[in-house]
Amino acid sequence: MNYRVISYVLGWVANIEAFCLLLPTLWALFQGEETVGAFLVCIFVCLVVGLPLSVYGRKSKDMFAKEGFVAVALSWILMSLLGALPFLLSGSIPSFVDAFFETASGFTTTGASVLSDVEALSESVLLWRSFTHWIGGMGVIVFLVALLPSSGSSFHMVKAESPGYSVSKFVPKIKTTAKILYTIYICMTALEIILLLCGGMSWFESLTFSFGTAGTGGFSVKNSGLADYSSYVQIVITVFMVLFGIDFSFYYLILIRKVKNAFKMEEVIVYLSLFALSVVLIFFNIREMYASTGTAIKDCAFHVASIITTTGYSSTDFNLWPTFSKTILVLLMFSGACAGSTAGGIKVSRIMILFKSIIKEVRVLTHPKSTIKVKMNGKILEHEKLRGVTVFFIAYMLIFALAFLLISLDNLDMTTNFTAVVATLSNIGPGLEMVGPCGNFSVFSDFSTLVLSFVMIIGRLEIFPVLVLLTARTWKNK
Amino acid sequence: MNYRVISYVLGWVANIEAFCLLLPTLWALFQGEETVGAFLVCIFVCLVVGLPLSVYGRKSKDMFAKEGFVAVALSWILMSLLGALPFLLSGSIPSFVDAFFETASGFTTTGASVLSDVEALSESVLLWRSFTHWIGGMGVIVFLVALLPSSGSSFHMVKAESPGYSVSKFVPKIKTTAKILYTIYICMTALEIILLLCGGMSWFESLTFSFGTAGTGGFSVKNSGLADYSSYVQIVITVFMVLFGIDFSFYYLILIRKVKNAFKMEEVIVYLSLFALSVVLIFFNIREMYASTGTAIKDCAFHVASIITTTGYSSTDFNLWPTFSKTILVLLMFSGACAGSTAGGIKVSRIMILFKSIIKEVRVLTHPKSTIKVKMNGKILEHEKLRGVTVFFIAYMLIFALAFLLISLDNLDMTTNFTAVVATLSNIGPGLEMVGPCGNFSVFSDFSTLVLSFVMIIGRLEIFPVLVLLTARTWKNK
Repeated sequence: MNYRVISYVLGWVANIEAFCLLLPTLWALFQGEETVGAFLVCIFVCLVVGLPLSVYGRKSKDMFAKEGFVAVALSWILMSLLGALPFLLSGSIPSFVDAFFETASGFTTTGASVLSDVEALSESVLLWRSFTHWIGGMGVIVFLVALLPSSGSSFHMVKAESPGYSVSKFVPKIKTTAKILYTIYICMTALEIILLLCGGMSWFESLTFSFGTAGTGGFSVKNSGLADYSSYVQIVITVFMVLFGIDFSFYYLILIRKVKNAFKMEEVIVYLSLFALSVVLIFFNIREMYASTGTAIKDCAFHVASIITTTGYSSTDFNLWPTFSKTILVLLMFSGACAGSTAGGIKVSRIMILFKSIIKEVRVLTHPKSTIKVKMNGKILEHEKLRGVTVFFIAYMLIFALAFLLISLDNLDMTTNFTAVVATLSNIGPGLEMVGPCGNFSVFSDFSTLVLSFVMIIGRLEIFPVLVLLTARTWKNK
Repeated sequence: MNYRVISYVLGWVANIEAFCLLLPTLWALFQGEETVGAFLVCIFVCLVVGLPLSVYGRKSKDMFAKEGFVAVALSWILMSLLGALPFLLSGSIPSFVDAFFETASGFTTTGASVLSDVEALSESVLLWRSFTHWIGGMGVIVFLVALLPSSGSSFHMVKAESPGYSVSKFVPKIKTTAKILYTIYICMTALEIILLLCGGMSWFESLTFSFGTAGTGGFSVKNSGLADYSSYVQIVITVFMVLFGIDFSFYYLILIRKVKNAFKMEEVIVYLSLFALSVVLIFFNIREMYASTGTAIKDCAFHVASIITTTGYSSTDFNLWPTFSKTILVLLMFSGACAGSTAGGIKVSRIMILFKSIIKEVRVLTHPKSTIKVKMNGKILEHEKLRGVTVFFIAYMLIFALAFLLISLDNLDMTTNFTAVVATLSNIGPGLEMVGPCGNFSVFSDFSTLVLSFVMIIGRLEIFPVLVLLTARTWKNK
């Protein structure tokens, strides 16, 4: 194990976090909030941790996959630990376990909260809370790669942090790819902020809700979520949730004028079809609960977008919808949106590959001599990638089962437990029953809160970096 | 598609069913029950269907995997259709959909029931109901292969009907293997019948409960399940449930005096460890609900055995246990017991292989050049078998999701729906909430009842035979 390269990454992650903390600090300063002091202490702590590590560390071309995975997994844990300080020091969340949960929920773009009254928090703390979504959405390591001098190690780390079964490399250099990704991300976020400002939202609301949409996070700054906002605002957010659920390669292809290729992306087509189909099915299931067809369609579209993109915003309590609608939402919680987007979950492309592998198996069973290959976008999927997808699904389910068992010790009902695990593992936020849109995660014990915090990180990093971290073999020096 | 060979198999299945119906017919005759007439009509119908098909059909060496899968899938649907007649004609279950469900539940050894008062049924009908468990447990096709002149086709059919990722061939000839399997099955069932008779059970009770244990079915002839029977009876049934959950290769190895090899079988070791661990965990979770430690352990062991072997008998209402205990039971519902036994579910060996494939993936990720193979019982698992296991798991989960969605249209609670699907797909019987040990499946609409009937057949045949049957490509003649 090359410790110095890991130290280098961890140090820079802490330094970047100190830099990111400037946003809420300045906000607190201009608004004259008492939290300024707390934020300054946090920045100091981040630098105390970050500077020595980054100075001791050394970027190296000798970084292999193993170091990449370990560095990324540790970075996310460190980020969540440091990021919890503002909640703790400002007194917003007195328990450290709860503050860690809230921060992990932020960075992993889950949006699950232990707070029952968010409106009691100061604006600067809420801004930090929503900003963690934005940082975590595209990924801090991707940011690091875009920023720092490139090295041979970058690819493994981007691979470990990026969602999906393969890393989209727009251009041969991973550093340039990272820059393009962040440019698209910033422009789309800025566009949403402007549109929300046009809808009469304050700067504070536009910023926080846009951060939450862009990262597909879902933290709200209102206790009622988005229920009290105008239809215009809800529709803008619906559209942007859908857009941020699309593979960013799609936008890159459009930027380089390969529009035809963009609209041929199998995953995007299936994702949008799945979205439309779910809206239609839920609409027919709930229309009798609504006086107006328009409102019913708007609420359907909003919640399907919110769940499939794993954002987790709510404009109404879907916990009160019929079981069929709730079941569709629960299934979408597993699928998630496109790989290469900021969304969580298993991802539509993986689900497609899983389906294709079943079709392949049926054909092989009936025609044992045939040699059928699974294809995506017309290209044959290599054996390693196919295996990666199936094993990811298996690992996802087994980790689901383990977490489901561990949190059942709290003796809450099974629907709460089941949806709490999927809502955290897929980085969605709300589940059903006690963790539904009108509930929160404070119902869990400290032990379960910690379990669910790690489940969020495991889900965001798509399992394997954390498994590599936890494997004893990783730490043996040969 | 070779239709005549399929006709041959279907014809003989119907003829064998006519033969099997002799048992309840004779029972009705000797007990002087009115149901004799109904049973005679059923036998007549079976022969009217079976004889022409078996005469028109022709056994053929040209039976490929495709025909084998189709023949087995159709056989199980035909069996369930014909087997439903006694319930219908005797007036025991007036609705055809319900009678079909009850019969499919019997043959697939699920043990889920639509009846709220089983004690109202006549003994002969209950005997038929439990006898379907025994027939379905080892499999009617295996019986057919043991009975009829051997042909090249047998292997594919046995493969399609036998649970597990590979078929145990004790001896090179599949016909002889089938005979050995049935001999072990009959002897073990006979032993249980004798032990239950010694415990003061009547012949009727000993027969029905032994059939239910041997097939890991779970139909009871008492409304209270096994709650009103003595501890001796409950312990005997616990032991036999565990024994019938073990791969029959284990018994064969003992019979041919390879005891050491038998006790080295990885799956058996893990299965028994899983059983013991679950008993211990649940015991510590529920002990405060019991006055006596002995009763608590007995109830734990009984229900863990009942669920892990997918039998589904109950001696108490585990729906009232704490969530942790219920969660363990739900997870065991997915795992099931050993491949090569009469149990349902995913099977312990498959779960082991899934775990091993995750470990392999983590190693490959950290050491990309390493060539690691997944092993079972010290032997490298071929690529095709490994893929078969992973794809089976994927298909299992996707069919689970589909059925979970379809039955949610009835608007029952999610725990009922979730456990109803796992209880039928894994061929267990009872679930939780409305389909718990004290509930029954009559709460579902006809549509959901049909869906769950097919889910049971899909689960019993381990998915692929039914998928092959439903694939349009199968029916194209090239």
